[in-house]
Amino acid sequence: MRKIEHIGIAVKSLKESNELFEKLLGTPAYKEEEVASEGVKTSFFMNGPNKIELLEATNPDSPIAKFLEKKGEGIHHIAFDVEDIVVEIERLKKEGFTVLNEMPKKGADNKLVAFLHPKTTNGVLIELCQEIK
Amino acid sequence: MRKIEHIGIAVKSLKESNELFEKLLGTPAYKEEEVASEGVKTSFFMNGPNKIELLEATNPDSPIAKFLEKKGEGIHHIAFDVEDIVVEIERLKKEGFTVLNEMPKKGADNKLVAFLHPKTTNGVLIELCQEIK
Repeated sequence: MRKIEHIGIAVKSLKESNELFEKLLGTPAYKEEEVASEGVKTSFFMNGPNKIELLEATNPDSPIAKFLEKKGEGIHHIAFDVEDIVVEIERLKKEGFTVLNEMPKKGADNKLVAFLHPKTTNGVLIELCQEIK
Repeated sequence: MRKIEHIGIAVKSLKESNELFEKLLGTPAYKEEEVASEGVKTSFFMNGPNKIELLEATNPDSPIAKFLEKKGEGIHHIAFDVEDIVVEIERLKKEGFTVLNEMPKKGADNKLVAFLHPKTTNGVLIELCQEIK
């Protein structure tokens, strides 16, 4: 857990929210990327050592579509940068956290990712992410 | 908007959540602080260049008590570090954002703070914070 790698925010329209976050952060998105396996289109903004990720659903059964339906637009997850995701998953399991995917999977932005269940983390969906070298 | 200064997380019990986040982040809270004007007790954890703030309500009419009642435990706000909060408030107002308090107020952790209304920021409660020197 070396820093907040990014905060993921669920949005209805990536196009409109890209404009909004460009105004807010004073810098445009540096990339857009679709993650077909998650049914999501993303954009990323740099903010000093951190990033903001916007997530738009690309199909009505995707986790982001369900989140928007239930809760509306807003913060979806916090992602922490980790050096070795396999070691970190093992450490957190021993500490009593529920890891949603024990095998890290390929996420957006060239990362291996794993999620912790919000029921074990004060209602916060937490992502671990390790850069793929 | 130089970096994510902290993420604020609403919790029912600061004591229990301090233990949880110590396990998660691998480091204990470095301080606790009550902000009587906001009806809140806070704790702070360092995470590289960022912080995690936990917030427990100290009275039933406080914003955090209402948030917990409505949404349960979870992420309450994102705070961005700014160099000059007065300049940043003016810039954001011109860009069309609704600033909840146009005069910065004293927040926790030796900061001047101001909030943006979530209706203008994709459902995300955003705090600007400037360190008091």
